[in-house]
Amino acid sequence: MNGYIKALGIAATSAGKRALRLHLNENRGGCSPAVLQALQRLTAEDIASYPDYTEAINAAAGYFGVPADWVMLVNGLDDAVRLLSEAAANRGALTPAGPGSFSGVILDPAFDMYAAGILGAGGRVSRVAPRENFVFSLDDVLAASVDARLIYLTDPNNPTGIGLPTGAVEALSAARPDATIFLDEAYADFSGRSFIPTLRSAPERFPNVIVGRTFSKAFGLAGLRVGVLIAPPDTLAPIESLPSPFNVNAAAAVALPAALSDPAWMRSTVAEAAESRQAVYDYCDRVGLEYWRSEANFVLVRVAEDTASTAAIVEAFAARDILVRDRSSAPGCRGCIRITTGLLAHTARCLRALEEIRASRND
Amino acid sequence: MNGYIKALGIAATSAGKRALRLHLNENRGGCSPAVLQALQRLTAEDIASYPDYTEAINAAAGYFGVPADWVMLVNGLDDAVRLLSEAAANRGALTPAGPGSFSGVILDPAFDMYAAGILGAGGRVSRVAPRENFVFSLDDVLAASVDARLIYLTDPNNPTGIGLPTGAVEALSAARPDATIFLDEAYADFSGRSFIPTLRSAPERFPNVIVGRTFSKAFGLAGLRVGVLIAPPDTLAPIESLPSPFNVNAAAAVALPAALSDPAWMRSTVAEAAESRQAVYDYCDRVGLEYWRSEANFVLVRVAEDTASTAAIVEAFAARDILVRDRSSAPGCRGCIRITTGLLAHTARCLRALEEIRASRND
Repeated sequence: MNGYIKALGIAATSAGKRALRLHLNENRGGCSPAVLQALQRLTAEDIASYPDYTEAINAAAGYFGVPADWVMLVNGLDDAVRLLSEAAANRGALTPAGPGSFSGVILDPAFDMYAAGILGAGGRVSRVAPRENFVFSLDDVLAASVDARLIYLTDPNNPTGIGLPTGAVEALSAARPDATIFLDEAYADFSGRSFIPTLRSAPERFPNVIVGRTFSKAFGLAGLRVGVLIAPPDTLAPIESLPSPFNVNAAAAVALPAALSDPAWMRSTVAEAAESRQAVYDYCDRVGLEYWRSEANFVLVRVAEDTASTAAIVEAFAARDILVRDRSSAPGCRGCIRITTGLLAHTARCLRALEEIRASRND
Repeated sequence: MNGYIKALGIAATSAGKRALRLHLNENRGGCSPAVLQALQRLTAEDIASYPDYTEAINAAAGYFGVPADWVMLVNGLDDAVRLLSEAAANRGALTPAGPGSFSGVILDPAFDMYAAGILGAGGRVSRVAPRENFVFSLDDVLAASVDARLIYLTDPNNPTGIGLPTGAVEALSAARPDATIFLDEAYADFSGRSFIPTLRSAPERFPNVIVGRTFSKAFGLAGLRVGVLIAPPDTLAPIESLPSPFNVNAAAAVALPAALSDPAWMRSTVAEAAESRQAVYDYCDRVGLEYWRSEANFVLVRVAEDTASTAAIVEAFAARDILVRDRSSAPGCRGCIRITTGLLAHTARCLRALEEIRASRND
């Protein structure tokens, strides 16, 4: 129904549902049983009423250790990206500005939605090219962000899984006070590292930083579309003033507190993802494939030297009913696929398939 | 959490949930049992997977009698309003244009989100003032829309409940070929009248018309946030190209086909709403209150002569645990409240309260 979904190919189709889905970094272990129980309790009156967010906001505030007015619910981080871009575009209404007049900075390789959101809101994308081995360069980001209104950071990065170096957010926040810095922590449950405690301890130092968290990944709620923006109320105000009432639905609003009430379930998921990553590393080390150590529930692996061969390998996976993500056309990612590393059994099946595919291509 | 929700006061709060909610035109009869059954069938894997929209789109296409590629799912019509405004703003990227450079037309009184969406996307709002008794004037709309990129029509209108005259959409579509005409049919299940068959029979005549439908009202799915845009693929293309993958969640995606599979439930709701409206008319006729005959599940009633008295009456309702909507500040609606007219028992309770309140104010 939508350009992005179409670009994912069979990703979101019924056919894709029957395959082993290792292409969207979903949690293939499902979600906590507490979530299903919460959904079962929904009444016809709940379904027919506009959602009430009080419990979901309080649960998220408790989980992240921030006041309730630091929490804004979003319909997944895709929604957040749209809202951030709209807010950045709107600042142009205060000053004479033409089309494409606001600049949003993206550190490549990056989540596709960032650029789509900036362009969708009429902005222009300022791209920071990756350095060797995706090493973060503050100088490069500063050079790209001289007139930026919005800067996207991701920790850990998608699709590389690599974390931001210590101090990067602090340095950028201070150097670019006129830009909103969005720190996407979609995979932070896996890294165990978050900027939220730093922001909470000194909010006055970071008036331009907003942290995004999703419950689609470690908590397994991708289907319910719920994330949060975390920042002090003054920082959130331009986004909260945008017209998006009732953007999160009643099922998501009851699922979130239920998911957060069962952190043990999430931690077991995170532990198994770490074992799965290690299995991928071990295989790659053994056969000599290049990969990058990841702090998320996926690993980027260089399986080929060119884009055409990568596409053929992705197709060979699909022929075995396994979906992996072709990232070969992303900057710095020539020949790379991204494999979701969740359940060990799935990872083992994926690696067996990779072994077969490589053997058949070497014949 | 959001400016609009805050403006609704106790509307969306837990306290509001315990009261008799006659202020948001929800279906107080709930939803079809088929919807609850569909939600019960959701598995942990469904919850953890990005949604698949195939069945929901096919069900909506079947219900409205259009091809599947005429259907775009939206996260409620609020989401549609945001997307339409963004698409209108983006057309400015093709031509030199400053801030506030696109014009969106609204026929007052209107749903608050229209103006919020235009302003949120950096546009300017061109308002058509209401004529006596809210009679539609094509001349007035044409005068306001000379340079418009977006025109909002609503049939039946919210908050008046009055339908558009025959031929209005056709005339406006022909006279303003450069504007997108969004026809909001949120309450069309109650009126039994839709532009979709006309659009379907001659799409080439109406390349600039998009019809919006929600399942929040007659179908009772307000909590699940699901609506559709209906138009030929070429008309939808600029909106579908905006970044909004997975904007409707998995619970909504299974609820929609379930709801549409039980049209008898919806029709019984619509029939009871008609009886409820008649009860309000009868009361108003008896005591001499001005009202407007409505084709939706609400009635606009003039309960006072000024805004302060109206607010006092709305508060008096709230003191009796009944929520009605104060529309006194909307153009043409001085002294008016909007009462959701769904279940007969609720309408009777509301009218008893109104009788008490009027008696106490006349003491």
